Order: sequence, then C-alpha cells, then structure tokens
Amino acid sequence: MTRSYDSIRPIKWQDNRLQLMDQRLLPQQEIWLCIDTLQDTHDAIKNMVVRGAPAIGITAAYGAVLSARHHIATNVSTWREGFAKDMQLLAQARPTAINLHWAVQRMRDLVAASDAGNAEARLLIEAGEILQQDIEACYAMGDFGASLISTGSNVLTHCNAGALATGGYGTALGVLRSAAQQQKLSQVFAGETRPWLQGTRLTAWELAHENINCKVIIEGAAASMMQQGKIQTVVVGADRVAANGDVANKIGTYSLAVLARAHNVRFIVAAPTSTIDLNCPSGADIPIEHRAPAEILSLGGRALSHPETEAVNPVFDVTPAEKVDFLVTEKGVMKTPNAKKIRALFA
Amino acid sequence: MTRSYDSIRPIKWQDNRLQLMDQRLLPQQEIWLCIDTLQDTHDAIKNMVVRGAPAIGITAAYGAVLSARHHIATNVSTWREGFAKDMQLLAQARPTAINLHWAVQRMRDLVAASDAGNAEARLLIEAGEILQQDIEACYAMGDFGASLISTGSNVLTHCNAGALATGGYGTALGVLRSAAQQQKLSQVFAGETRPWLQGTRLTAWELAHENINCKVIIEGAAASMMQQGKIQTVVVGADRVAANGDVANKIGTYSLAVLARAHNVRFIVAAPTSTIDLNCPSGADIPIEHRAPAEILSLGGRALSHPETEAVNPVFDVTPAEKVDFLVTEKGVMKTPNAKKIRALFA
Repeated sequence: MTRSYDSIRPIKWQDNRLQLMDQRLLPQQEIWLCIDTLQDTHDAIKNMVVRGAPAIGITAAYGAVLSARHHIATNVSTWREGFAKDMQLLAQARPTAINLHWAVQRMRDLVAASDAGNAEARLLIEAGEILQQDIEACYAMGDFGASLISTGSNVLTHCNAGALATGGYGTALGVLRSAAQQQKLSQVFAGETRPWLQGTRLTAWELAHENINCKVIIEGAAASMMQQGKIQTVVVGADRVAANGDVANKIGTYSLAVLARAHNVRFIVAAPTSTIDLNCPSGADIPIEHRAPAEILSLGGRALSHPETEAVNPVFDVTPAEKVDFLVTEKGVMKTPNAKKIRALFA
Repeated sequence: MTRSYDSIRPIKWQDNRLQLMDQRLLPQQEIWLCIDTLQDTHDAIKNMVVRGAPAIGITAAYGAVLSARHHIATNVSTWREGFAKDMQLLAQARPTAINLHWAVQRMRDLVAASDAGNAEARLLIEAGEILQQDIEACYAMGDFGASLISTGSNVLTHCNAGALATGGYGTALGVLRSAAQQQKLSQVFAGETRPWLQGTRLTAWELAHENINCKVIIEGAAASMMQQGKIQTVVVGADRVAANGDVANKIGTYSLAVLARAHNVRFIVAAPTSTIDLNCPSGADIPIEHRAPAEILSLGGRALSHPETEAVNPVFDVTPAEKVDFLVTEKGVMKTPNAKKIRALFA
C-alpha cells in the first residue's frame, strides 16, 4: 500500500557508512552527518544528533556494524573483545530509551553466532532488518492508533515521536499520519517541548512536509485548551515501557496524562514492542536521565539567566499505566495496560 | 519593621519623570528607561518593559501624571479632553490585567475633582500613594501568605509575581520573601514560563538578589516533581480575579492548579484587592490576551521553527475558584474563594 504521508527517512546506510540527519540543526538546516566509527555513533546518540527511542536503536545497530568492521580489520584475533567493549560504551550513550539496549543485545547475539569472515555482512543485514521492521511497526501502529481517533478531532502531541524518532513514519506521528490519510484530523497541536523544542523544531517541520495542519503551543497552554474543549486526544510515544505498563517518555508527558484524565481527553501511547522492557517491573525501576542545566538556562550558546541561576533538568518522566487509556503497539491496541496484558503480548 | 528580603524597586518617579527598569533586558542588563509621555507609557506596558498586574497599574498612574502635565501645558482649555483620550488609549495597552483599569479609573476620578492649577500635583501624589499602598499590600500578603507555608517546604512559583511585577516585594514572591524571613523555605522552584521566560529571567534574578535558594524547572517537569513529593506548595499571583473568585493569571497557571489538586499540593494565589474585578462575574468574562506567534516561534529575533509553522499564543488562562486552596489579599487569607467571600472583602 502506498502511503501519502511518508516522506521522511532520517537514518540511511549509504556509501558503506551510516548517515544521520542532524536533528540539532533542524529545521533551519538539513545536514546529513556521515559516520564511520563506533565512537562517532555513540556521540551522535549522546549529543542528540539522533533522538527518539526507536531511532536510537536503529542507529546503535548500524554502530555495531561499524565496530565489527573496524575490529576485524585492525586485529582479527581480538575483534570480539573490541566489539564487546564498544557495545558496552554504546549502551551507555543514553540511559532511558530501552531500544538502545535492545538493539545492542540483538547485535551481540548475532556476533556470538558469527565469525570474522561473515560478521560484518550479517550485522549489516540485521541492522537493515531492524530499520525495516521499525518502519513496518510504525505503519501498523499508525493504522491501529488511527482507529482510536474520532473524525474531526483536534489532537495534541508532545516532543517528536515522528519519522525523525524512528526508521520512518513515526509512532505518535504515525498515528497522526494514518489519521490524516483517513481524513480524521481537524487540527494537530504540537507542544513545543522544552528545553530542546522538539515540537517546534521537529514535529512542526515533519507535519509541514506532509501538509498536515499543525499549530505549536507552549506546554503550559495544554490544560487551558483542554478546559476549553479544544483538544480531544493526546498521542505520545515512549522511551521505555515497563513490564507493568508504566511509560517513561519525554518530560511533560506525565503532566499531559494527568491533565487529559482530568478533562476527559483520551490519552494514547504509541510504542513498538521493542520499547517494552520486561526486565523493568515498574516505572520506578526506569533510570531517568538528567541533563545539563545549561539546556534550560541558555539557548544557542546565549545565557538566558543570571549567572548564579541553577536549574534541575530531568528529561523524562513516568506515567503510571492506569493513566494510559490505550497503548498501541505493532501488535494491536491495548486498553489501559497492565502486567498481564503486557505479558500476553510476548506470549 | 525592616525587611531582610526587600532590595528591588522597579518603578521610580525621579527627575520629574517616570523611570522603569526595562524587564525585557533582564537579567543580562539592568537598564532604566526614562519616560516623559503618555504614548511611551502605553508602549512600555504594551511591549512589556513593565509587566505584572500591580506594576502595570502603578505605571499607568504615573502615565496619567505625564498626560495631565502635557495637556495642561499645551492647551489648558481642552486639557480634560486630551487627558480623557489618553486614558482611553492607556486602558487598551493590555486587556487582561485589571489593575490597569483600576488605576486609570482612580486617576480619572481625581481629575474630575481637580482643576488645571492643581491636577498635576494631585495626580502625582495619588500615583505615589498607589505605589506605596501596593508595597504595603505586598508586605501584608507576604506575611499572611507565609502563614500557609509549612517549615521545610519546597515551593513552586510560576512566571514572575515578584518585586518586578509590583511596586516592590511582590505578591507570590512576597509570600516567599516573608517565608524566607521566617526560615520556612527549603527550596524554591521557578517554572521557566514560556514564552517570555519570566521565571528564568526575572524570578531567578530576584531571588538571587535576595540570596533565596532557587532552581529553575521547565513547566513540563512540575507534574513529575509533584508525583515524587518534591513540591509541597504552589504560589502564584493573578492578573485579574473575577467576582466569583476565578483567577486569570499567566498561561500555565491553570495547569499547575489541576496538577496540584491531583497531587495533594497546596495551591495559593496572592493578589491585592486592586486585582479583583467585581464587574466581572466569572472567569468566562475575563478577556484573555493572545500575543504574536513569533513570541513562541523565535527567540531574540532568531527563528526556531520552519517558516510555515504556525502557533497559538494565549498568554493567560483561567483557574476556577474551586481549584484555589487559598486566596491571599492584603486583607487576609481566604480559603477557597467564592462570590460571597469576595463580596465580604469589600463590605
């Protein structure tokens, strides 16, 4: 099936290396970064050239290809040790998104079953499959999720859970793309998403590419717009879903979940099963990344605050499962997730 | 009584003219703007050189002095008409803060009872009294409000309802100043307050001046911090309080009120009686200012978004009276305001 709203692919393997659209520079500049080393892959994830749980996973998979190629070429007798060390580094690039660990583990398993002669080729095929499976999962989530959107809806999304956060199409924005294809959307609102402004910079750019009507609002305006009946549905992605259905996602998500419940607004989380961490019993066990106060206190290198000013900058929060009206995965729609329903997904 | 945390006065009458600390440039530059005309007074309010309901009222009062002086000097036979037109213009500078209308009306009433020979002098005394009464009201609110803060509290405030938003001392920050004097504060969190970043720029600057421990958070982090028990109390100011106790304040305030209620966090509004509009039956009757999308989509003249991106920028919201745990005025503490209690304040 041809999809009308599917014009963006942020991660490519081309000229035998990894190429990433530099998301720090969007939307002013569309620059592709070419990456040949594991260290650069790690840095691209840590420094947010690429962000979004599924996109981080795909990037890490290609990083594993670069690592294996390098170590096999430089010292074939110790390449497994070199690869193992690299995977340890890579897994630490960012703590919250579980897809990073999931992809790294998939590549480790494959290396264990490969040899120096076939590892690079097999890893490259595996990375390509991870990318392609992610896009397919986004298509499926999009279509499942769109069934939850009523015709004529105004939908709020947060951060960027779009093509840029995945192999393509997006999780939350996949739902919006499918809903747009079904002509169900009246208006998309994008929360600007401080401090990195992923809503203003990335989501608005993506939706402009697709000619989907989008207006940015500050996060503080969401409650008031719900109060006025201007938002019917909230759709967000996830960085990690615990085994009990608790959802870690961009800071501000939990706020929207509480406000949605208080205003009888539907709250939907769209995330592939690769984002579900069965080893994490609940949200309390998910490590929450804190980043530098300067992300809040300056912009483009320019200080916004008095030099003595301090800030606290947690970049994810946890929404308890009971506040999630629907969890959409590539396997279907789950009404209010819980441990039993999550387990059944993997049965 | 000498107050330890009372070092800022943003509005002065000096050298026979109005002088305003330019709040658009804080905290990088502390520049005083000298104002000689009614038009410049209007523009200073409209363009947010000065902001905050009480400070806008005081500024308008001094603007009335400048207007009367000008018209009496240039055409004494038509000065009342000139003054009346000026007051009409001034009252339209910003729509939501009621103190603007309140101060303009006080000056109109005084002009009606004055003549060309004594008007300027009488208006100047009146403006000085409005300023002084505002500071006294802030002292009273601060002390009443501090009685609602438990020792060892972490308190979140939003926007800037500080010395900079009043004649001095502040409404919400007056409460924090008094609580600091009583050594009740463990930690102040300032919500950064998009899009003008009054929290990051102004509140953090004020509290640094007073050596009160303050950390900035993005607005999306408030819910998560309440969830974790890191915030016990929210204190905000108001731009207009309706006759039934509904509160219009900076966009994002209603969000905090809903979140506070959901997390059993105390929600306090501090506002002088000059902010109460008995002619406004409820919040639905309060005009809510919308400002330019560019305030959200650019910073310091630099575009943050794709050129096609649109935004909606309401700058105030309305918190229903029932969500307000306490309304603190200079007359005392009111538990959950309603029409009857508000009427009794003016009896």
